[in-house]
Amino acid sequence: MAVRNHFIKLSMNLTIIKVGGKIVEDSETLDQLLSDFSTIEGYKLLVHGGGRSATKMAEKLGIESKMVNGRRITDEETLKVVTMVYGGLVNKNIVAKLQAKHINAIGLTGADMNVILSDKRPVVTTDYGFVGDVKTVDGQNLSHIIRAGLVPVMAPLTHDGKGNMLNTNADTIAAETAKALAPFFDVTLVYCFEKKGVLSNPEDDNSVISVITPCSFQQLVADGTIQDGMIPKIENALAAVKSGVSKVVIKCASDIAVESGTTISYKD
Amino acid sequence: MAVRNHFIKLSMNLTIIKVGGKIVEDSETLDQLLSDFSTIEGYKLLVHGGGRSATKMAEKLGIESKMVNGRRITDEETLKVVTMVYGGLVNKNIVAKLQAKHINAIGLTGADMNVILSDKRPVVTTDYGFVGDVKTVDGQNLSHIIRAGLVPVMAPLTHDGKGNMLNTNADTIAAETAKALAPFFDVTLVYCFEKKGVLSNPEDDNSVISVITPCSFQQLVADGTIQDGMIPKIENALAAVKSGVSKVVIKCASDIAVESGTTISYKD
Repeated sequence: MAVRNHFIKLSMNLTIIKVGGKIVEDSETLDQLLSDFSTIEGYKLLVHGGGRSATKMAEKLGIESKMVNGRRITDEETLKVVTMVYGGLVNKNIVAKLQAKHINAIGLTGADMNVILSDKRPVVTTDYGFVGDVKTVDGQNLSHIIRAGLVPVMAPLTHDGKGNMLNTNADTIAAETAKALAPFFDVTLVYCFEKKGVLSNPEDDNSVISVITPCSFQQLVADGTIQDGMIPKIENALAAVKSGVSKVVIKCASDIAVESGTTISYKD
Repeated sequence: MAVRNHFIKLSMNLTIIKVGGKIVEDSETLDQLLSDFSTIEGYKLLVHGGGRSATKMAEKLGIESKMVNGRRITDEETLKVVTMVYGGLVNKNIVAKLQAKHINAIGLTGADMNVILSDKRPVVTTDYGFVGDVKTVDGQNLSHIIRAGLVPVMAPLTHDGKGNMLNTNADTIAAETAKALAPFFDVTLVYCFEKKGVLSNPEDDNSVISVITPCSFQQLVADGTIQDGMIPKIENALAAVKSGVSKVVIKCASDIAVESGTTISYKD
């Protein structure tokens, strides 16, 4: 019986693509991305950013964008901007374009179907304002709509269950959603990146490390191949595969339809 | 068998509430509306407007709002404004607030789940721009999610199936959605209005006509009781009940949880 369940789960591939604002905000790169996305076989889900559009819109409205450690300080006015830009402008544009490609997309924030509940980030040294740290993802209900043939398009917004939307990091949404769906599907989580993958030589764009495991990761950090901001990214990817996600792939947005990039897998 | 089906349908009451921008854009009236809405028994669905917020946002962004016969001329920049205001700001605010009341809301535009496909309005004397005339509503898939316990919150936006969002009248969305859901539920369509209902004496707010049928409507128009803008509203309501909607009710937004207003019903 265990074997049979295993087989059923493995036969249900789900690819989660996380793509940043840079790609989805330019109509040419977005069209290419959505064309490639529509060719991915099996179940799929898209998580998008939109930070540049939010900054641009805030600027037009005379609202200053304040960033601390790359995170947006989200006061009440900024929350309105990100809610309308991420949940309205960027999300619905993607959904309409996917529908034109006969992909039955459904745009979701964490509030819709109560799919992602967050806690407002507590103030420690910085008050980030209306920023959410993911508490629970309803993988069960999300898996139902995916199996019904819908393709969720998730905006980087969640809610606090008390009536407030919360601005939430898209990488985190992708990782937490992947973990919550791991009991229902064989999940591949793809992070789109400017480079072709994790490089062993930052000067050489073709020096992509094809596989990273917990063991090789330690070596790559020890010998200085992997440094700085890439370390937490891969630590998060390893945490996801440890939580049941089959694999995490870091690759270029233009390569989502082909086998490529760096695969982070738990098995040595 | 016919009797049994009839019984099953009658036992599935669905109340569709259409509420305009004025109510949903003020936090006090919105909170009251959502409290009342959450007490409605049976299945329910909310259709909202948001025109005032869109006009305000357009103004802040230096975009002129052009109206012809009460309809917004929707050029490319205005389409962006209504997509973000209706589909993002207003819609997600309602969804988050309903979630706080333990109503499992899901925000939808016509593009999501391909639920409402429209034709871009052809240019006759006026070019309305990106405005949609509803072509089809997917009542079947909408009924599935309603039966699964979700409460759709519909923004006045549809799509053309070619990748474009379209600005669409909320009254029309409510009527067409009610008709499309009539084969699956016993549908009551409620239009919220400033007055307590259709008045027999415009000077007397308590002179609400409790029932209007096709026959009494003709008399009320003939004797001048119903005039001007109310005539097409009631004609549309009669068309809806002719198409299978059980009844259309015109009442005050503050009365949605109580029996009141004017009921438009097909049966004399």
